[in-house]
Formats: sequence, structure tokens, C-alpha cells
Amino acid sequence: MPDVLSEKARQLIARPLLATLATVAPDGGPQVTPLWIEVDGDDLLVNTARGRAKARNVERDDRVAVSVIDPDDPYNVVMVRGTVTAITTEDADAHIDHLAKKYLGVDEYPMRQPGEVRLKLRIRTDRIPMQG
Amino acid sequence: MPDVLSEKARQLIARPLLATLATVAPDGGPQVTPLWIEVDGDDLLVNTARGRAKARNVERDDRVAVSVIDPDDPYNVVMVRGTVTAITTEDADAHIDHLAKKYLGVDEYPMRQPGEVRLKLRIRTDRIPMQG
Repeated sequence: MPDVLSEKARQLIARPLLATLATVAPDGGPQVTPLWIEVDGDDLLVNTARGRAKARNVERDDRVAVSVIDPDDPYNVVMVRGTVTAITTEDADAHIDHLAKKYLGVDEYPMRQPGEVRLKLRIRTDRIPMQG
Repeated sequence: MPDVLSEKARQLIARPLLATLATVAPDGGPQVTPLWIEVDGDDLLVNTARGRAKARNVERDDRVAVSVIDPDDPYNVVMVRGTVTAITTEDADAHIDHLAKKYLGVDEYPMRQPGEVRLKLRIRTDRIPMQG
């Protein structure tokens, strides 16, 4: 049964702090990228674009880890392993606008590229290592 | 030939910001943990203790990735892959004191546990993915 994110973790992720997403690169090593994030129930939601390294990585290997650090309190961090359970396009444009509201305070994501296909990734939180 | 860290990356890492270290867990998935970090030449240095998950992970698989995010500027991030080239104990106690000076402003690491064996990890920076 997946761990449920703590209330403190939810509060941290609710802030407009960049998360670090760790994915498995083609060679099996870890790769990290910064991205926007939000909580949805017990899942995490992030958004990327088709063809990006992290998108290709999770299409190949659904195992990820997510880090969020409170810059004001080094003891307040979220470090969680997870599994990408869904990669969707149909609601991904609305979702990146939603994240742009959280992170930039604007109604529409301002950095769309021509021809870009947005992907919404749903991440099930699997484990929360408390000590590394 | 390894990429050399940019001057901007060095300046970011010089600040007392928690880094995220991604390692390869026993099952091959990524694992993330927060930790202190510094630059030494073109390498990164971090410090952990024997027996911690991240120590066991890098003893098994030397591939890591490191993330540092500027909380004041979302465009100022370090996201780098690397290889652990040395795990040493003899200079690890002095090194954790050195990091405690950077992060806490104290001369001696105040959180030592009885019997704890500190490990200094040297990380060669292998690649800097510019876009994820």
C-alpha cells in the first residue's frame, strides 16, 4: 500500500517551489531535472513535453523519485520514490496552465513552444525514505 | 572529458543550499536524499555516514545525479550527472566539520552519532543535461 503524503509534505509541495525529478536514464543511471509539481489526492502531478529526456525516461522506466526542499528550513524536505502510473495528453495543456497559475500567478502558461505536446504525469508515491 | 562546472554553477553551489543527491537503489530505481555539498576543482564533494542508504547505493553503483536549486531564481539551477570516484574515511571527519562551517557557521559538526563512521564522497561531474 502506498505511503500517504504527510500533511507537512503536502503543505511544502503546495508552495511554488521547484521540485527535482529523478528518472532512470537509458544507461540505468539517475538523471535529475527541475520541474513544477502539485499534489492530487495521494499522487503527485507534474508536466513535461513530449520528447524531453525525462519524458522518454519515464516512458521506458516508470520509476522516479521526487525532492522538494524548503529553502527556509533544512529539516523540511520531501524525498519520495514513486511510480508514473499515467502519461496523458488530453488534459495536459489545462494542467500546465494550472501549474503556471501556481508558480507564476498567470492564467496561461507563457512558454509554450510551437508544436509542443504537453504531457501530464501522474506519480504514485511508493515509499518515503526517512533517512538517507 | 568531463564537463567543467560553469562559474554560475560554482557560485550557486558555494551558497549554503541543500542539494539533492540521486542514487541508484538496490532495485534499480532512483532514490533521492538531501545533503550538504561543495565544489573541489571540477569535482563535487559530499559527506554521509557508513550504512546509510545513499552510502550503500553508491558502493554498489557509482552513478549519481546532483540537483541544486536557487530558491530566489528558478532559472538558476545545477542539474548534473556524476560518478563517485572515491569514498574515503580518513579525511571525512574534517570534511563534515568543514561543511558544518559552510552550512551552520560552526567549527564542529554538531550532529555526530556514537560510533558513526563518516564517509567523504568525491563525485566527478560527467554530464550537464541542459534541458530535461
